[in-house]
Amino acid sequence: MKLEQRYEGKAKKVYATENPLEYVVEYKDDATAFNGVKRAQIQGKGEINNAITAHLFPLLERAGVPTHFLEKLSDREQRVRAVTIIPVEVIVRNVAAGSFAKRLGLEEGTPLARPVVEYCYKSDALGDPLINSDTAVALGWASEADLKRIRELALKVRDFLVPYFEQRGIRLVDFKLEFGRTPDGTIVLADEISPDTCRFWDAETNEKLDKDRFRRDLGGVEDAYAEMLRRVTGEGVRD
Amino acid sequence: MKLEQRYEGKAKKVYATENPLEYVVEYKDDATAFNGVKRAQIQGKGEINNAITAHLFPLLERAGVPTHFLEKLSDREQRVRAVTIIPVEVIVRNVAAGSFAKRLGLEEGTPLARPVVEYCYKSDALGDPLINSDTAVALGWASEADLKRIRELALKVRDFLVPYFEQRGIRLVDFKLEFGRTPDGTIVLADEISPDTCRFWDAETNEKLDKDRFRRDLGGVEDAYAEMLRRVTGEGVRD
Repeated sequence: MKLEQRYEGKAKKVYATENPLEYVVEYKDDATAFNGVKRAQIQGKGEINNAITAHLFPLLERAGVPTHFLEKLSDREQRVRAVTIIPVEVIVRNVAAGSFAKRLGLEEGTPLARPVVEYCYKSDALGDPLINSDTAVALGWASEADLKRIRELALKVRDFLVPYFEQRGIRLVDFKLEFGRTPDGTIVLADEISPDTCRFWDAETNEKLDKDRFRRDLGGVEDAYAEMLRRVTGEGVRD
Repeated sequence: MKLEQRYEGKAKKVYATENPLEYVVEYKDDATAFNGVKRAQIQGKGEINNAITAHLFPLLERAGVPTHFLEKLSDREQRVRAVTIIPVEVIVRNVAAGSFAKRLGLEEGTPLARPVVEYCYKSDALGDPLINSDTAVALGWASEADLKRIRELALKVRDFLVPYFEQRGIRLVDFKLEFGRTPDGTIVLADEISPDTCRFWDAETNEKLDKDRFRRDLGGVEDAYAEMLRRVTGEGVRD
């Protein structure tokens, strides 16, 4: 089913298929942080992120967010619509954390009076620099109409995910989305939603259940990912 | 006329006056770059920036941009409306240069397909970090309506200044504005417009006629400021 590899990112590979309108995405255990400076494997991560994304994307579809997701094929693979990724990463923040807190001198955990949607230019070479919508339009990465749609969808994702995780004892601190364009020009949610791309804090204890455990050498990385799989899907991980 | 000092910035001091609705601004020769790391005096700068600002602000008023400027009092002083500065610096870019070019891997001088309006949080301690309008609203620095008005005024300033400088053989590469709020809530253009706050390139030679000569140790700093005074006002500087 998989033909030639079309793209290899830090956490996934994308393959062409016999159907030009479809790709296969393969989730890796590779973890990187600080723009690739820190590298390791997180045992079981590929499987868990595939499972969490394959669980959430159909729910988002039903909530009115078109996505690239078609079907989970195996532990590490999913079938998706072939899209061209828009090189603008979208970060939605509910609570100040990470680079945002540092940049603005805020204590991590400071709630934001309203959601903040940030855009970064997707470029490993430049370290995904912060941009704004004017810059994305001026440099031809997206049109004004694209960005309006992307913002609308990103906030729709937030409105679905915040209560979804709340019901599972998780505070959704922030998350990163990527969008793609189908051959007919439709903008759809692409990439993944997982502990690699979200900050998940336990609602009671504020324990971090996401990639920050890896970034900050907090230990218990695999356990945190497994715990998030359990909270999202109700399933455990296989031994 | 000047009473107690209300504020001292890197390039200006602000004094209270007997009229609670007015301040006196005093322009200094002090120059700083890279958030205060590099410091020096630029001979005549205070006088020149006062003269250029006092020349441009009334022209902008007539072009429909309300400003804090009332009157030039002396070589280094001007009388202005007492405003509360909104802690959001506004950068308008026509051409990629400086930190923007570096951050996005663009060659300095790359024209932008449309003007880019960027916001920074005015904080020396944090190095004036880049923000967006969501962040400004979420952290209470300005309302959505304020930012809409600020953007509108910033683009009006651009639409006036670009042809104004073009007629004087100057390419207006980018510029930084600050806005203030009067006691009745009106948003007005404040601060200054000068070689400290704009990138001015000679339209023929691309020679830099602004603070980048100081930042980058290009020499001829005083001459560049004097040349800009001449181009803007048609006046020379006193010996």
